[in-house]
Amino acid sequence: MTAADTATTAQEFDLIVLGAGPIGETLALAVAKHGLNPAIVEHDLVGGDCAYYACKPSKALLRPIEVAATTKHLRGVETSHVGADELLKRRDEQVSNYDDSGQEESLESAGVTVVRGHGQLSGERAVEVHGRDGGTQTLRASRAVVVTTGTTPNIPPVFEGIPVWDSQDATSVQDVPARLVIIGAGAVACEAATWMNSLGSKVTMLVREGALLRGAEPFVSDILTDHFSDASIDVRFFTEATQVQRPDGMDQGLGKVKGGTVSIRTSEGETLQADEVLLATGRRPALESINLESIGLSPQDVLEQRTPGWLHALGDAGGKHQLTHMGKYQAKQFAAEFLGQQLHELSTEPPTPQVVFTDPQVASVGLTEDTATDAGYDVVTGEVDFAGVWEPVYYATMLLAKARLWLIKPPVVCWVPP
Amino acid sequence: MTAADTATTAQEFDLIVLGAGPIGETLALAVAKHGLNPAIVEHDLVGGDCAYYACKPSKALLRPIEVAATTKHLRGVETSHVGADELLKRRDEQVSNYDDSGQEESLESAGVTVVRGHGQLSGERAVEVHGRDGGTQTLRASRAVVVTTGTTPNIPPVFEGIPVWDSQDATSVQDVPARLVIIGAGAVACEAATWMNSLGSKVTMLVREGALLRGAEPFVSDILTDHFSDASIDVRFFTEATQVQRPDGMDQGLGKVKGGTVSIRTSEGETLQADEVLLATGRRPALESINLESIGLSPQDVLEQRTPGWLHALGDAGGKHQLTHMGKYQAKQFAAEFLGQQLHELSTEPPTPQVVFTDPQVASVGLTEDTATDAGYDVVTGEVDFAGVWEPVYYATMLLAKARLWLIKPPVVCWVPP
Repeated sequence: MTAADTATTAQEFDLIVLGAGPIGETLALAVAKHGLNPAIVEHDLVGGDCAYYACKPSKALLRPIEVAATTKHLRGVETSHVGADELLKRRDEQVSNYDDSGQEESLESAGVTVVRGHGQLSGERAVEVHGRDGGTQTLRASRAVVVTTGTTPNIPPVFEGIPVWDSQDATSVQDVPARLVIIGAGAVACEAATWMNSLGSKVTMLVREGALLRGAEPFVSDILTDHFSDASIDVRFFTEATQVQRPDGMDQGLGKVKGGTVSIRTSEGETLQADEVLLATGRRPALESINLESIGLSPQDVLEQRTPGWLHALGDAGGKHQLTHMGKYQAKQFAAEFLGQQLHELSTEPPTPQVVFTDPQVASVGLTEDTATDAGYDVVTGEVDFAGVWEPVYYATMLLAKARLWLIKPPVVCWVPP
Repeated sequence: MTAADTATTAQEFDLIVLGAGPIGETLALAVAKHGLNPAIVEHDLVGGDCAYYACKPSKALLRPIEVAATTKHLRGVETSHVGADELLKRRDEQVSNYDDSGQEESLESAGVTVVRGHGQLSGERAVEVHGRDGGTQTLRASRAVVVTTGTTPNIPPVFEGIPVWDSQDATSVQDVPARLVIIGAGAVACEAATWMNSLGSKVTMLVREGALLRGAEPFVSDILTDHFSDASIDVRFFTEATQVQRPDGMDQGLGKVKGGTVSIRTSEGETLQADEVLLATGRRPALESINLESIGLSPQDVLEQRTPGWLHALGDAGGKHQLTHMGKYQAKQFAAEFLGQQLHELSTEPPTPQVVFTDPQVASVGLTEDTATDAGYDVVTGEVDFAGVWEPVYYATMLLAKARLWLIKPPVVCWVPP
């Protein structure tokens, strides 16, 4: 049965998932595997941002850059360079040329009904799906509706209404703008600066505060800023865009330059000219377009878990860690509970591992020294010169051997500098 | 006070360590840090095989080869090649040009007395050190003597008395033999085949049994053999050397070709000509030259822990895992016990992580499927296509996040195929 067959009457499912990213998929698959009947609603690509617009394309772009950078630093191997055209082809391969039919098929064949369109709540346990063809259908959940809609980009007021790039354009890059201004200094900003620089853009970063990757240990920003500067990425701290003009801008599709020169007046009084601007000013849970009002709720209610028992938000949409692996972990925990299985409950929340794939990479597990101190832990800090640990891979083996130590008394702060 | 000052009278120490490899160093440093007075005896380089003849030079040689191999497989970066001369220079750098003065200094400055020479037991808690200058001195331990002498290569009878390479020659390679025959199929044989092939040797491997890396999952041998074959490494299974001649052979120093052509008659009836032979037929605990007879013991007594309370063997010399990180772990456990500190005793022995740095790399944690089944575990096997896991680094992050699962109910078999 396809969704279209019953467009006029409400279809009934055990569980309705809004958003077919990795978190929604993980949950729907777990529920279907148990013999229940879940539906998943998606208005864009099945597989979500992670598969098409975030993790996967960004890592596809960054891995050859990392290898080329390694050849530059490593004696015994010829220096190699990135090939821009080949790099974009690799990205296209890794995102299956933005074709999600394989992913839809694997969900359907596992017993998950995929409903294409924009899903909105329309009452208790009810979801209305607005198809691209203009049609609307209603789904009902006998048990629960779970929101896994991910995030939506923050747009600083000064950029409101001006067509520029967001992170999806950056990972989908087709045109390489000669001059690119990046607004922001988080993981997306720093990773995109890395690949856009390698692709040939002259990158300028406008950073409101005084550091790159502010959530990281302070030394990370110093090291990364030095490397960016060596790579001719122009990092400007304590600088904001105060006025923006783009007379000829218009949307040309993802990854295409939006057209015409952008003029940016900065808080330092300078006017920058750019061929494109990337907004990497953070993302917030995508809760605004699912019509929470229909059940008398606001996004804030969802984030603070003031929801009826049949409604849940998981992953990025739930507002906790914006990390795919953490969201999948939540989805597995939720599925187990939903299915009445015994949970392998953790006595303490495990420390969160994460990596920013710049050159050098910034990898971390658990809290920073400051955060741990503020939380009342007695912190001991160790420093290891990574160059003295022979080989990163060997070191990784040792980290695995020691991994249990992190778990006996978390959080132990473990930073892996370049 | 240097050792030479008191050559005629016995010097007294709290602890005497035979062998200044990483295991001996770890132990001596822990004891010295506690205010006790340890001595460490070494006849070769302080730092041991790991620093000069095994882990460090082999990984120094293999890392650029790995990166060059990656450029071959990875779209988006130009193919790069290994530069043989630069590769050997990198190896020399990484082993500090075989100069151990820095390592001796750091031991001495930490309160460890370094005694140069060949150490042998000469009675209860007594050690005789035979210096290179022909002098002898006697050391006494008030508490314990710990043997951390590492391993010594096994020599198949057919090679007895014939000058050929052992693993130390292979890591110390100066001359690149045009035709190299490697006897063996373990980690040393496979890693050395990888770098000697990259340096330009035509490598033939004679393998007694039917697999490479016999301790690993069976599929590992199949994959590795295919890759070796693609790289023109000639692997001959079920083949042994039955007769060997090298009329003009003589020792020229580590890493130098021993001179003259070697003729090897194989069990298949063929005669191979080679410019060098590498024996990689395993190593056994180096317990034969420390004069155990003086206290009425044999090497077997030591391996089975039938020793008086003052005598211990740790690390490779103790005959357990031949892995530096496992030996260091033992040394830390021993030091804690010796110093009367509370041990963080593990309720079960942690699964052992290890890597063989071939192309592809072979990484493992814990038991193989067969070994686990034989040990009575109910084994579930999962297979993941590594190419489908996007990026090894991303996957490693996930492994770290999951690491605790290995520890809840070890052993979980975790194989990371290419």
